[in-house]
Amino acid sequence: MSASDSKHISFTKLPESEAVWTKLVKCTYLDPTGTQRTWESAERTTRPKDCDIDGVGIVAILERESGPEIMLQKQYRPPVERVCIEIPAGLIDAGETAEQAAVRELREETGYVGTVKDVSPIMFNDPGFCNTNLRTVHMTVDMSLPENQNPKPQLEEEEFIEVFFVPLNTLFAECKRLEAEGYAIDARIGTLAEGIEVAKAFKLS
Amino acid sequence: MSASDSKHISFTKLPESEAVWTKLVKCTYLDPTGTQRTWESAERTTRPKDCDIDGVGIVAILERESGPEIMLQKQYRPPVERVCIEIPAGLIDAGETAEQAAVRELREETGYVGTVKDVSPIMFNDPGFCNTNLRTVHMTVDMSLPENQNPKPQLEEEEFIEVFFVPLNTLFAECKRLEAEGYAIDARIGTLAEGIEVAKAFKLS
Repeated sequence: MSASDSKHISFTKLPESEAVWTKLVKCTYLDPTGTQRTWESAERTTRPKDCDIDGVGIVAILERESGPEIMLQKQYRPPVERVCIEIPAGLIDAGETAEQAAVRELREETGYVGTVKDVSPIMFNDPGFCNTNLRTVHMTVDMSLPENQNPKPQLEEEEFIEVFFVPLNTLFAECKRLEAEGYAIDARIGTLAEGIEVAKAFKLS
Repeated sequence: MSASDSKHISFTKLPESEAVWTKLVKCTYLDPTGTQRTWESAERTTRPKDCDIDGVGIVAILERESGPEIMLQKQYRPPVERVCIEIPAGLIDAGETAEQAAVRELREETGYVGTVKDVSPIMFNDPGFCNTNLRTVHMTVDMSLPENQNPKPQLEEEEFIEVFFVPLNTLFAECKRLEAEGYAIDARIGTLAEGIEVAKAFKLS
């Protein structure tokens, strides 16, 4: 039984009356000339009150003797009808910081215990279309810790997540290879891989 | 008159009957145990038939003597109520390739003429929430070309876009500085900057 055993059945129109997790919003604004305009936006309904983000993405790095590796996941994503290659991620709970959400989500989804190293600015996933956003939390995973010897995820009944590791240095090639195998690539991991390639191509240091 | 002169007025519920550019969709699928489940998804209504992407993002690099610089934009984004820092981007037209859309959009939005170097896998912006996606097209901009001496964008009446350049090597620090000034950071540029920092931190080459 793996994430790849999921199967798409159908897409149908979601009536407004049935929408629980998502909603459509009309934005009214003045453009720079003072003209009033409107814009359509999609939103999650789950962002906690007084919180400025929907969730966190987690760049979890293992430092192995052969070089650094990043923790990735395979998870079936109904909106894209396919198993998606992603970094660990999750929605934030009320009262949590991004760091706390990241430590909790990594533990729940993968079983691994990580240490927070850095937190990104708030990043908007598709700001011409929706307001969904996240902070990326950068963590290291110390594989010598006793709690990381036999990590056990605590998944919800409807979650099926497979964890795997990829060397950072070959991440972009691996994204291309996984896409060719039929996986969908999440923008966070694909764009991180592009950033690594750009740094290498222009010898940034 | 600049992008920052835009002003948020209100968010209201968008009735299903008024939605033109966006829609909510109910996904029905079988999970790996064979249990039938549903999921909510948001979609753009603009993806051309038989096209596998909504649009393109453009990583346009200028090679200056002082080092490579990336072309960025400031644009007011109603869904996030703020001016957003983004790479040039746009929706794809029917019958276009990602490369053709990128050349056209760069010309329209910024006036610059670029040369395509590489195209990314399809990347999904937020695959637990929506199906929106893009390919990143990597381009170089030759500043010695006559057509790049006095570039003139061809903007739509409702578009107000400001173009600027940032050294690739300080992109992450610049994202943090711009966020502190009140700008919203698009995930594509923020995550590309994170990838550059990761490559530098782990001395990938």
